[in-house]
Amino acid sequence: MSAHSHEIEEGLAFLPNFDAAGLVTVVATDAATGDVLMVAHMNDEALRKTIATGEAWYFSRSRKALWRKGETSGQTQRVVEIRTDCDQDAVWIRVEQIGAACHTGRRSCFYRKVEVEGSGTRLVFTDAERLFDPDAVYKK
Amino acid sequence: MSAHSHEIEEGLAFLPNFDAAGLVTVVATDAATGDVLMVAHMNDEALRKTIATGEAWYFSRSRKALWRKGETSGQTQRVVEIRTDCDQDAVWIRVEQIGAACHTGRRSCFYRKVEVEGSGTRLVFTDAERLFDPDAVYKK
Repeated sequence: MSAHSHEIEEGLAFLPNFDAAGLVTVVATDAATGDVLMVAHMNDEALRKTIATGEAWYFSRSRKALWRKGETSGQTQRVVEIRTDCDQDAVWIRVEQIGAACHTGRRSCFYRKVEVEGSGTRLVFTDAERLFDPDAVYKK
Repeated sequence: MSAHSHEIEEGLAFLPNFDAAGLVTVVATDAATGDVLMVAHMNDEALRKTIATGEAWYFSRSRKALWRKGETSGQTQRVVEIRTDCDQDAVWIRVEQIGAACHTGRRSCFYRKVEVEGSGTRLVFTDAERLFDPDAVYKK
């Protein structure tokens, strides 16, 4: 293993390995239940703001914009813990989620299970209750 | 919302939205504890093999190769549940992890917390006990 790899994997310096687009992948889990709430991305600024404010900020790839989670919906995330992985290209945040993490109004974005059906698959809704009405919240 | 978006978000068809490199992001959590074990990627073949075999297969971006988790180390993952998210570009698998998920020998790849120190940050090891010796297992 190179000295650089050793520093990244075993060191005490937080050296996030942003990809070509300047992003790291972020997994947000519910600090109370362990459920995965969402998978999103942070750029350097989002990561800094998250650390500084204790609230989750992300970078939207589709809107190409920094975004404070809940700024429109009010469904904010208070960050309880931030971890990074061995190669520092992913971040795990444990959060206290106010209301729903998903823009569809569900608690988690992962509201469908993949099940085997015959030689194929189908999705089955699970934990899919809507906590808010997205049409009302986002005024589409 | 377009008819296509509606089908992706509210439909019962599993239509994984692979990125330009043909990959979806996968979060593996420990089915027993809820801890995030690793963040990795699957291509279509890895996803199909995971569903067909009940064991986790991934696609390594660095080695550009399909990879059965544990094929070298013996630290396999039995898949308990597979979920997909609202826009179907991420997959969450809950697994029974044999031994350690991380190539460093730790149970999880997320063995360091990010803490604030003065105006900067530092990493603090947590849950970082090695369950195997990577030098012995991978014969570097």
